[in-house]
Amino acid sequence: MARGEHKHNKLVHLGAALESGALAQVRRILNSDLQPADVAHLLESSPPKERNLLWDLIDEENEGEVLQHLNDELQSWLLNRMSVEEVANAMSDLDTDDVADLLQILPHTVTQEVLTTMDSQDRARIEAVLSYPEDSAGGLMNTDTVTVRPDITLEVVLRYLRRHRSLPDMTDNLLVVNRRDEFIGVLPINKILVSDGDTTVREIMNTDVITISADMPDTQVAQLFERHDLISAPVVDEKTYKLLGRITIDDVVDVIREGADHSLMSMAGLDEDEDTFAPAFKTSRRRAVWLGINLLTAFLASAVIGLFQGTIDKVVALAVLMPIVASMGGIAGSQTLTLVIRGQAIGHIGSNNIGWLLNREFIVGLSNGVLWSIVIALATYAWFQDLQISVIIGVAIIINLVVAALAGAFLPIIMQRLKIDPALAGGVVLTTITDVVGFFAFLGLAASFYL
Amino acid sequence: MARGEHKHNKLVHLGAALESGALAQVRRILNSDLQPADVAHLLESSPPKERNLLWDLIDEENEGEVLQHLNDELQSWLLNRMSVEEVANAMSDLDTDDVADLLQILPHTVTQEVLTTMDSQDRARIEAVLSYPEDSAGGLMNTDTVTVRPDITLEVVLRYLRRHRSLPDMTDNLLVVNRRDEFIGVLPINKILVSDGDTTVREIMNTDVITISADMPDTQVAQLFERHDLISAPVVDEKTYKLLGRITIDDVVDVIREGADHSLMSMAGLDEDEDTFAPAFKTSRRRAVWLGINLLTAFLASAVIGLFQGTIDKVVALAVLMPIVASMGGIAGSQTLTLVIRGQAIGHIGSNNIGWLLNREFIVGLSNGVLWSIVIALATYAWFQDLQISVIIGVAIIINLVVAALAGAFLPIIMQRLKIDPALAGGVVLTTITDVVGFFAFLGLAASFYL
Repeated sequence: MARGEHKHNKLVHLGAALESGALAQVRRILNSDLQPADVAHLLESSPPKERNLLWDLIDEENEGEVLQHLNDELQSWLLNRMSVEEVANAMSDLDTDDVADLLQILPHTVTQEVLTTMDSQDRARIEAVLSYPEDSAGGLMNTDTVTVRPDITLEVVLRYLRRHRSLPDMTDNLLVVNRRDEFIGVLPINKILVSDGDTTVREIMNTDVITISADMPDTQVAQLFERHDLISAPVVDEKTYKLLGRITIDDVVDVIREGADHSLMSMAGLDEDEDTFAPAFKTSRRRAVWLGINLLTAFLASAVIGLFQGTIDKVVALAVLMPIVASMGGIAGSQTLTLVIRGQAIGHIGSNNIGWLLNREFIVGLSNGVLWSIVIALATYAWFQDLQISVIIGVAIIINLVVAALAGAFLPIIMQRLKIDPALAGGVVLTTITDVVGFFAFLGLAASFYL
Repeated sequence: MARGEHKHNKLVHLGAALESGALAQVRRILNSDLQPADVAHLLESSPPKERNLLWDLIDEENEGEVLQHLNDELQSWLLNRMSVEEVANAMSDLDTDDVADLLQILPHTVTQEVLTTMDSQDRARIEAVLSYPEDSAGGLMNTDTVTVRPDITLEVVLRYLRRHRSLPDMTDNLLVVNRRDEFIGVLPINKILVSDGDTTVREIMNTDVITISADMPDTQVAQLFERHDLISAPVVDEKTYKLLGRITIDDVVDVIREGADHSLMSMAGLDEDEDTFAPAFKTSRRRAVWLGINLLTAFLASAVIGLFQGTIDKVVALAVLMPIVASMGGIAGSQTLTLVIRGQAIGHIGSNNIGWLLNREFIVGLSNGVLWSIVIALATYAWFQDLQISVIIGVAIIINLVVAALAGAFLPIIMQRLKIDPALAGGVVLTTITDVVGFFAFLGLAASFYL
């Protein structure tokens, strides 16, 4: 009992056993004491060397369950070290949707080889799931549904269930289909329990059910689950109404977690599946690309400053103050950008309210521009005792904050239409705009005053 | 059937009805056609004027369900417009954990008044939940558990359930307690269905169960649910083993969503409950604070540049190039910062692997520093044909990228120890460090060369 409480102790034991080299003990803890999900979490939290050591100590029959709980990057790294037989073995105990998930990571030829090792029924099921994109309802669904007919009694249903002796995980509903295998409703398990045995399925089944079409994007599936507190939902062919499978909350939780992580990580040019403990070489290479992209935008900003070298030469205070203009624009813009990206992710922003949003951002940008331009102008005057430069920086701040607010709101909307990921590209483009506009406004105004 | 598919049409109808002023039709769609969760989503996606109008059209008996699905900010806004009676009415149909959630938003005196309108049993239940912090397992739990004794047969359990006619939502397990109300295991609903009626609860109950103590932080609860694919889990008093309540996946999904949103929004100085369509005045005021904090750090960076005015006066190219040094440091640092903050949030980073992580970040910072310092030095030479300045910027880039990587990794770890939210404060402190170090390294080196 109370596994949660003892787990911490087990992990402490494991650490001690690993350090003292008591590998037999480590193996026992990994394979019997801890759950596969905990082992997966341990692997994700370990640097490469420990990770290799731990993986080698995991028994073959547990590999599949552990793999299933790992992030994509680690799955790919481990699967690519395994032979086709090992992969096929590891997958033999998993649900179809989980097998499909893992297979999608492997090269196409290896996937085909693994599929040939399976019996024809399993293969057909997995191929059905694989035929849908990974990020669609079809790719999320499981084909192991328990179906019943509407005209039988609960007594019969119970007898049928007792013969089977077990139900798939996360079964909160039995799915009711007619003779042509068309979906017509759900029979909640809880209703079976509280109803009399001679009631028919039709009498208590629920026909006002949220159904999901196989091509629905997974983020939309997640929104339906979140809004309607679902544990599972049937996937139904849009045209024929045939039942294709069902989606369960455990897989949806992963979609929610990944979707939310995606915005956060993308804004820093990282992948949501980024391995926290990837080796230095791999990490350096990836981050170098992002730094390179940002370097281009930094050079662009420098080029703008370069246009006004003569002015800076005359008034060196400009060089001292110019980062303030750029930085205030960057901060204001990224606030709007983040708000809009989050709003898009949870489905708040649509064509009917964009107009209001842009208008509000304009007002916010203008009022904060005015407020902070006064503060900055006064501070500048106190510092340099130069009225002209104080006015110039004040005006530049207003211009840049209004542009920043509008850019922060417009960019993600335009990018979404162009199918560019706003979380990934938005920040870079926004900073370029606020830097360029900020330097141009500040130095350009100064140049025309100090000619 | 297929509510998901028709919903879009209903929303289109609603929009048309709203525009044409057909309020009776809008009222019907809001109260009968749409689910409370959909109405909540609609309110969250509406600008203030439409929002007011829609809220007034919602029938009183639906207000509670709709409120429950709104974000904290909107809940607070609407609850504060309602009288004590209206609040008490709205809450009468909700689960105890949801009522507690709503009450936590109200001022203490109003909460007390609402509690006095309830019957003593409900009040006791809600006060039990309210006695725990909102972000703990106790604050998440629901007290409506269905318990059974271990020595009865399934036949008896079924008879008992049929008498009750309904089970609380998300009931996947009955909770097994002994005579002293101590928790001893769970009886999965699915096992009741597939087992014979003369089996006793003890024979098929599951005693290897994850239990949660009432003071466990909600983020840790979410990790347990995610890792072990739970639908519900019992909350048990740590010392007495008495059953206190249970936590269900629908509330945990909200914790996961909010936790992930928290990191994203905090990094832009926003709240995870931020209302996308808050009025301009409210939005301006909040963002002004964040801009003010960042202005202080921007002035700090300017002050550093100010120290080197003499040098910039001699070599104006320094002013042109200095944003590149600061910007590359900021980008590199924020990549590390984001990775570590995410790693902390999902529980990957602990005292046993910090050392490895810092070491890796040092290597990554150094190798990317060397790589990009060469590129930047070459570009600078091509631009200004000045060998000295090219070498100076190259060295400054290496220094700033190493400092950025170490700061990005150290800051969130130190802040977590000091109980400061790294997602909120990390970015500001990091940028200050990379700006100050970048300008100091670049202009300081230049000053010593060009003396």
